[in-house]
Amino acid sequence: MKLKIFFIISSLLYAIEGLPQSNKSPLDIVEMGSFHIGGKLVEITGKPIKEVVFSPGSAPAKIDPNGKYLVEQMYVQYFVPKVQKAKIPILLWHGGGLTGVTYETTPDGREGWQQYFIRSGWRTYVSDAVERGRSGWASSDIWSGEPQFLTVENPWNRFRIGPGAWSEDPAQRTQYEGSQFPADGYLNFMRQIVPRWTTTDGATLAAYLELVDKVCPCVVLVHSQGGQFGQKVAQARPDKVKALVLVEPAGFGDPEKAASLKNTPILEIYGDYIDRDSRWPNIRKTQQELNKKYKDAGASIDVINLPEIGIKGNSHMMMMDRNNLQIADIINDWLRVKGFTTK
Amino acid sequence: MKLKIFFIISSLLYAIEGLPQSNKSPLDIVEMGSFHIGGKLVEITGKPIKEVVFSPGSAPAKIDPNGKYLVEQMYVQYFVPKVQKAKIPILLWHGGGLTGVTYETTPDGREGWQQYFIRSGWRTYVSDAVERGRSGWASSDIWSGEPQFLTVENPWNRFRIGPGAWSEDPAQRTQYEGSQFPADGYLNFMRQIVPRWTTTDGATLAAYLELVDKVCPCVVLVHSQGGQFGQKVAQARPDKVKALVLVEPAGFGDPEKAASLKNTPILEIYGDYIDRDSRWPNIRKTQQELNKKYKDAGASIDVINLPEIGIKGNSHMMMMDRNNLQIADIINDWLRVKGFTTK
Repeated sequence: MKLKIFFIISSLLYAIEGLPQSNKSPLDIVEMGSFHIGGKLVEITGKPIKEVVFSPGSAPAKIDPNGKYLVEQMYVQYFVPKVQKAKIPILLWHGGGLTGVTYETTPDGREGWQQYFIRSGWRTYVSDAVERGRSGWASSDIWSGEPQFLTVENPWNRFRIGPGAWSEDPAQRTQYEGSQFPADGYLNFMRQIVPRWTTTDGATLAAYLELVDKVCPCVVLVHSQGGQFGQKVAQARPDKVKALVLVEPAGFGDPEKAASLKNTPILEIYGDYIDRDSRWPNIRKTQQELNKKYKDAGASIDVINLPEIGIKGNSHMMMMDRNNLQIADIINDWLRVKGFTTK
Repeated sequence: MKLKIFFIISSLLYAIEGLPQSNKSPLDIVEMGSFHIGGKLVEITGKPIKEVVFSPGSAPAKIDPNGKYLVEQMYVQYFVPKVQKAKIPILLWHGGGLTGVTYETTPDGREGWQQYFIRSGWRTYVSDAVERGRSGWASSDIWSGEPQFLTVENPWNRFRIGPGAWSEDPAQRTQYEGSQFPADGYLNFMRQIVPRWTTTDGATLAAYLELVDKVCPCVVLVHSQGGQFGQKVAQARPDKVKALVLVEPAGFGDPEKAASLKNTPILEIYGDYIDRDSRWPNIRKTQQELNKKYKDAGASIDVINLPEIGIKGNSHMMMMDRNNLQIADIINDWLRVKGFTTK
């Protein structure tokens, strides 16, 4: 109820004043850098030595595949704005088959949530989960399972951009009416997709825990598959993860550890077209059932179904949709109400 | 000769004034973003449909592996400083088995050349070559060959940090005397290593060409394997690549197209311990022989062997060595002498 009144007031203010000034604030980054965290050494033995010519014309290098490999580390990039309005940093964790690029740009080349949160005065950390992007990945000698590759046809439907598969022929693909996804840039979005294992969750969780131990207390914002990592890490480090923003979580926390989130305010956001999708009603329901356990233990959870507050047309990739900054405003406003940032 | 006098004067100035002020300039980034460029659609047919559970507890998704895949795109991140001292941007291209992270940080957590060039007033682009990091990679249905993985023991010697292999036991590894590599952070460097194909040079070259067509005229700075891509791209786009900085190039340009570089000033930099290495004397010699062809065609080439100008102890990863900013100063000063940047 408090949340609804907050949104009515916020919406009125937006209508009068336009979008909050924070969006237009300069980036003014005074410090940036990156690091890799975590990982472990794994030894391989009994393989023959190889000669490899790494570049045409260069001398062959003897490569002994036996030895120790450093695997399951995670890449993190961070930015510090000149004017810090938030007391603690925000960590942006992407979904499955993607990397931190999720938050850096949109398929039509606008700014993403990364720049939004920096402009809004947050020290902002964007990472590539284990196995993805700049985190690197391990050979089949070390990891079980095999990577999954997505066709360009597949995510169009699965990420709720349109009712069927994507087709190279514009006449053969349909976008949901009112969709906010910048569909002309769909292939730019597909350029961001990276291979995905389904057997590396434990390693990913371990790396996120190390990250939280290094840079938090913090706010953690996760998307999709990241729902699992965000909730489980917050459950393991309730003193470090001060608030949790779950953007269409498709992975979940541990119901047995529901009580550990009793002091962690949680915001959950869902987009449009969920009732027309074959998977999303169940995925949302699973989280809502878990929410009951969190609430029974005393947790504070705000669930926003965007169409219910008049924001329509959002896909699963709402941080890239045309109204991506409107949704970021909702998140930033919620974090301000919770006391994490000043106007 | 002109270059030698320039370095004597520069060195005297450094001795009197300390390092140039540019290093201490604020980052003051006013715009940043990323994009993927290039790539192509490849169709796969005749494979069975799979059911994949992507996150524990989530509903299985039907994945049809048949269809079109978008492959061989390249990730690029860029930063625009408030005070621009350079007329054109600088593009930093990494070496084999690595990503753009090469330029973002050092194994002991200092700033890399990325921040140096931004602080020095350059619009700075850092990319991950095709197959690496955030560029993603293609399945064995699409790419021939297999990825190479590096043990942690291997690069210690191959990148000229020490005379033998690395060992987990400090008593069993030796660093070259006077080495500038921050060896305590060696495993942090190894965390940056990613798998490497030896069959993707054509795709990589195509993506770099698209990048240059999009954002140049520019200066291109390359390292190691990138020597091939930098020289070949400059040969293909002599109107766009206005200067070439080759940091220990281990890949080479096309001797048949030497004349195309006649108007492109080239700076080549080599570190220490080359004479004690099994591969580097030959790698350097290959480039020097190519230099003769470039010069015969009228090109202007400055080759710096760092020990010859009194800068000792540099490994192959000189952008991460303790004196990395001293070497960046040399590059930036050379670019200023060539007219690309103002003090």
